Amino acid sequence: MTIDVAVAGASGYAGGELLRLLLSHPDVRIGALTAGGNAGSLLGEHHPHLVPLADRSLEETRADVLAGHDVVFLALPHGHSAELAGSLGESTVVIDMGADHRLTDPDAWQRWYGGTHPGTWPYGLPELPLAGDTRQRDRLRHAGQVAVPGCYPTGGSLALAPALRAGLVERHVTVTSVTGTSGAGKSLKPHLLGSEVMGSTSAYGVGGAHRHTPEFVQNLGAAAGDTVGVSFTPVLAPMPRGILTTATAPLRGEVDAATARSVYEDTYKNEPFVRLLPEGSWPATAATLGSNHVHLQVTVDPDARVLVVIGAIDNLTKGTAGGAVQCMNLALGLEETVGLPVAGVAP
Amino acid sequence: MTIDVAVAGASGYAGGELLRLLLSHPDVRIGALTAGGNAGSLLGEHHPHLVPLADRSLEETRADVLAGHDVVFLALPHGHSAELAGSLGESTVVIDMGADHRLTDPDAWQRWYGGTHPGTWPYGLPELPLAGDTRQRDRLRHAGQVAVPGCYPTGGSLALAPALRAGLVERHVTVTSVTGTSGAGKSLKPHLLGSEVMGSTSAYGVGGAHRHTPEFVQNLGAAAGDTVGVSFTPVLAPMPRGILTTATAPLRGEVDAATARSVYEDTYKNEPFVRLLPEGSWPATAATLGSNHVHLQVTVDPDARVLVVIGAIDNLTKGTAGGAVQCMNLALGLEETVGLPVAGVAP
Amino acid sequence: MTIDVAVAGASGYAGGELLRLLLSHPDVRIGALTAGGNAGSLLGEHHPHLVPLADRSLEETRADVLAGHDVVFLALPHGHSAELAGSLGESTVVIDMGADHRLTDPDAWQRWYGGTHPGTWPYGLPELPLAGDTRQRDRLRHAGQVAVPGCYPTGGSLALAPALRAGLVERHVTVTSVTGTSGAGKSLKPHLLGSEVMGSTSAYGVGGAHRHTPEFVQNLGAAAGDTVGVSFTPVLAPMPRGILTTATAPLRGEVDAATARSVYEDTYKNEPFVRLLPEGSWPATAATLGSNHVHLQVTVDPDARVLVVIGAIDNLTKGTAGGAVQCMNLALGLEETVGLPVAGVAP
Amino acid sequence: MTIDVAVAGASGYAGGELLRLLLSHPDVRIGALTAGGNAGSLLGEHHPHLVPLADRSLEETRADVLAGHDVVFLALPHGHSAELAGSLGESTVVIDMGADHRLTDPDAWQRWYGGTHPGTWPYGLPELPLAGDTRQRDRLRHAGQVAVPGCYPTGGSLALAPALRAGLVERHVTVTSVTGTSGAGKSLKPHLLGSEVMGSTSAYGVGGAHRHTPEFVQNLGAAAGDTVGVSFTPVLAPMPRGILTTATAPLRGEVDAATARSVYEDTYKNEPFVRLLPEGSWPATAATLGSNHVHLQVTVDPDARVLVVIGAIDNLTKGTAGGAVQCMNLALGLEETVGLPVAGVAP
Repeated sequence: MTIDVAVAGASGYAGGELLRLLLSHPDVRIGALTAGGNAGSLLGEHHPHLVPLADRSLEETRADVLAGHDVVFLALPHGHSAELAGSLGESTVVIDMGADHRLTDPDAWQRWYGGTHPGTWPYGLPELPLAGDTRQRDRLRHAGQVAVPGCYPTGGSLALAPALRAGLVERHVTVTSVTGTSGAGKSLKPHLLGSEVMGSTSAYGVGGAHRHTPEFVQNLGAAAGDTVGVSFTPVLAPMPRGILTTATAPLRGEVDAATARSVYEDTYKNEPFVRLLPEGSWPATAATLGSNHVHLQVTVDPDARVLVVIGAIDNLTKGTAGGAVQCMNLALGLEETVGLPVAGVAP
Repeated sequence: MTIDVAVAGASGYAGGELLRLLLSHPDVRIGALTAGGNAGSLLGEHHPHLVPLADRSLEETRADVLAGHDVVFLALPHGHSAELAGSLGESTVVIDMGADHRLTDPDAWQRWYGGTHPGTWPYGLPELPLAGDTRQRDRLRHAGQVAVPGCYPTGGSLALAPALRAGLVERHVTVTSVTGTSGAGKSLKPHLLGSEVMGSTSAYGVGGAHRHTPEFVQNLGAAAGDTVGVSFTPVLAPMPRGILTTATAPLRGEVDAATARSVYEDTYKNEPFVRLLPEGSWPATAATLGSNHVHLQVTVDPDARVLVVIGAIDNLTKGTAGGAVQCMNLALGLEETVGLPVAGVAP
Repeated sequence: MTIDVAVAGASGYAGGELLRLLLSHPDVRIGALTAGGNAGSLLGEHHPHLVPLADRSLEETRADVLAGHDVVFLALPHGHSAELAGSLGESTVVIDMGADHRLTDPDAWQRWYGGTHPGTWPYGLPELPLAGDTRQRDRLRHAGQVAVPGCYPTGGSLALAPALRAGLVERHVTVTSVTGTSGAGKSLKPHLLGSEVMGSTSAYGVGGAHRHTPEFVQNLGAAAGDTVGVSFTPVLAPMPRGILTTATAPLRGEVDAATARSVYEDTYKNEPFVRLLPEGSWPATAATLGSNHVHLQVTVDPDARVLVVIGAIDNLTKGTAGGAVQCMNLALGLEETVGLPVAGVAP
Repeated sequence: MTIDVAVAGASGYAGGELLRLLLSHPDVRIGALTAGGNAGSLLGEHHPHLVPLADRSLEETRADVLAGHDVVFLALPHGHSAELAGSLGESTVVIDMGADHRLTDPDAWQRWYGGTHPGTWPYGLPELPLAGDTRQRDRLRHAGQVAVPGCYPTGGSLALAPALRAGLVERHVTVTSVTGTSGAGKSLKPHLLGSEVMGSTSAYGVGGAHRHTPEFVQNLGAAAGDTVGVSFTPVLAPMPRGILTTATAPLRGEVDAATARSVYEDTYKNEPFVRLLPEGSWPATAATLGSNHVHLQVTVDPDARVLVVIGAIDNLTKGTAGGAVQCMNLALGLEETVGLPVAGVAP
């Protein structure tokens, strides 16, 4: 079986990571590569690390260029996916790595992104445990369209969902996520210059202002079966990749560390891409670099009476492109893990 | 006026930063420099950046070497300060940059450090607002002995104390502090190697296990005038210096961002080393590098109903050696700011 | 075909990278993993990124543990390979990633490492062009024992050998190689601490003092067919991986950039792991991260009358473990490229 | 004595570092601050680390704004200084941190920068030893206009000039300089993004293409008293600041390390900002961070028969703004060292 794949937005970081993974996927043939302003240039100018594709030309992101492939990945700024997807025909599986189809609530879309809600697609976080003992995976098998989660909600939702679903904690949580710079893409902004970033850590989008907040609310609410209040603060650290999430929530009644751990073990014991670390080990983002794994550890603070969960992912792999390939595998009925790296690149 | 100063523990990072600052202090003459295992070597072997002192020899850390100075700074592992301080005589001001004399509660000492409580000295965080409209500064003027705060509680306490004192928030708070590696000192541990640290962010001391936790509890309790629960998580980021603190607490009643800001403005408007950033700007650790400033910003998250405060310091300057010099100035009746850098080194 | 492979020295950086690559090799079954001081611990304690092997125990590095595998990789400090290799039997292919069997000249061994010369094995740099229009590859096919090159000579030799073989330059060359910290291994030395490394670049082994110098002399002499003088300076930069080599040599007669380029194109046009970048592009180490590629660019400086070649590799992949797997493939008669990554992990 | 100082180009990195130093200069009053596109904004938006000046407004870079100050520093792109300087009047000392007035040869200007030669000003590298036993310093005392050197030639020229002047080496030299990113300023180019820079080292301007090359040729020729061929390669490393120069030159006759060292000792023994490190120590850029020092070490490679010199500076301090203040001090007849930092900020 050979799957013909096109990638729209191939010159950005998400597109580049996707192509890196697709190069190792045994069933994929890489077809059209498109871009916006970079159309007409060679892929190697943007991604010199992708040697086997370096001489490929970038075409314009248009429906007629993307049509005719088995799968089209969209790595576009928000607002561009709906129209393009509508022109591709039903036989094409569309995996949207942008934000357009993640939110189920039209009012939330209006508030956070503005304009008309482009509609909701199955949310591509297969491991997410849902209230009532199901998984999000069930909605992704043979899906024709998938909305890949944002990078922050990927790791953060998996960190807190088990405790919320099991009722271990109150339904108001605090999430601080330290991210590498590639999450901001290649946008030419002064605060993203190497001179500004190296040696510095800074916060942004503070006070619930980051657009991934409603995605956290949606995911954690689905796990808890009820409304969850989420205080989310993103922090920018001097590294290209990786997200380390510190998630806390007040304990509901008496919960000790062993109980908490057993809930997480039960929840994720069959998940190929979620690793609950051995007791006493804490996640580091470097161990997930280039891998599709989430590393987790959980404990309780008996003095402050809170649950604390630490999660690490690579924002470009599991947080974006790896998650997207995993969803493609599910949508096509392939083995979920095929072509996806299970070892990180460290040190 | 010339102040003769000795430094015990001069070969470590805290000692090195202290000497960098003392070199610029107009009233200080740098006397004996001592070390443990590094006694007998030249200071320049450990601190090649301190050119004017590079040829100075390190003596052994003994009371007879340190005696006879106007001020002795102790930058020693915990447990070594009490006996040494007792041998120095009452005419010597002793500034302890270690943990020995910070905690007021002997049981807390026993629990977190073990052994007999070495006693409590005035806590060297002059800006800390206390319940009842006083400042910690009042206890430091002309003090003969000062316990310099830990690096995490320095920035974190100043971030939350105004809101707790003013009753804006509930008395259970969440603090996630991202630190550079120099906070761990020069200890030769595998996880502190450059290869492990660069490109990686990791958590440690999770679940209330870090020894700075009781210091947070003590400081914030003094600000609130009542017991405060503190969930504290330290995170290690790939930079040599800097601490970025994200502090959240549930709002008590209706509090908007403007109200919160005005409380912080009022609290710190006369503080020479606390800068509340202009609205819309968020702290970055690089702006405080090598400076004695704390940079703060505050807002509220109206959806999650929490106060969020971000604070940035240089862990070695304001967080250790700068705070120590500031305390020396107060103890000697000098202008509090003399010799202390007010501009950071950036980019 | 399944190849049973053992790795001695599995807890170090070279061993870890080797295992990462072997996990993706379709023909390999990973057998015994051994260590020195870390014997008895789990691999995951040292390499949390190698999730599929995290629960494997490290055995002691002994011949009886390693015996019986088709291939044994030795990632040991120098001086330990010869005896061990001698006990493994002739049916086992031994790939030595250490220095023991690289040098052909017993006097050079005596001078640079001391003690008795452990003997010379075929030198594992397949792409090295030799005087007389052969390649080093010819000596590696079906070899029973291979000495993997040092990380610096891997990239540096390929950068200069074509020009020396073609007589474009004089036979005295200058090489400055900027390396990431993982080349120094996990040794607990103060100057390798993250606090010391980040934000700093430093030189070491200056004046021809680095042990890789005789390897450069040997390789470049083999390419030139005559003695070559090599001034080699290693420089430590704040990154975990990567070597960027700047190599210069005085032009012999009139040579322009186009002529130089055509020599390099001809030399490497069929090499699967050497990429001569498009004109105007210069190598960056990030593009080779985790990949087995060497990226090269060449030009001439018409004013200074020198050839300048820039080369980039990942010191742990092509510079150590990837080179080792490539040699294993040749030794076993497999396709040379099988199991080796051709795309880097960037950004 | 109070010196009124204006800074044109205050929002860039060179301007920011200059202001950091001027804040500590005891004789300086900081007057007009101007900018190009950033005129009208507050300095604190661009340099949040300069707290005492954060609320100062940036005016337009015009002669009438700058006129009337005792000293005007120009931190402008090349081509903008000559006209502006001509309008300031003879009573104003002008210190140009740009390239306009460095080169003495109009043809070199035409070749490297294009257009009409703006004229030559005294070259602001006081320590440069010149053929005939003079120093460049002699030309800077009471100068009305000074051309501050480029950052690369600052450290690189001081590294090689003593050996060339003393005839220890042949007059063709090789210089590889590894720089931090701030040397490129705040220009918004993709390859300067943090995501691209961190974890990567790359070369640029290879083959004698960098504009600092003719400055090396000019300086080293002045030291040697004859034409010197210079092969210069700049390399970009993942750090905000610092330049580490590796300079090599073929030995002329028999020269041992001790002889070379004594030449450097003699040359720099009275220089307040040049430190020849103790034997066996090699420069690291971190030790010069924020300091006006050059750290040097010299040796010979007896096998390759070359002299090797390693030099470290902070490109923004000694390499730009510190050098500029040093020149101001000389021009005004002040003590040369006043207001300049002699200790670095490390780790």
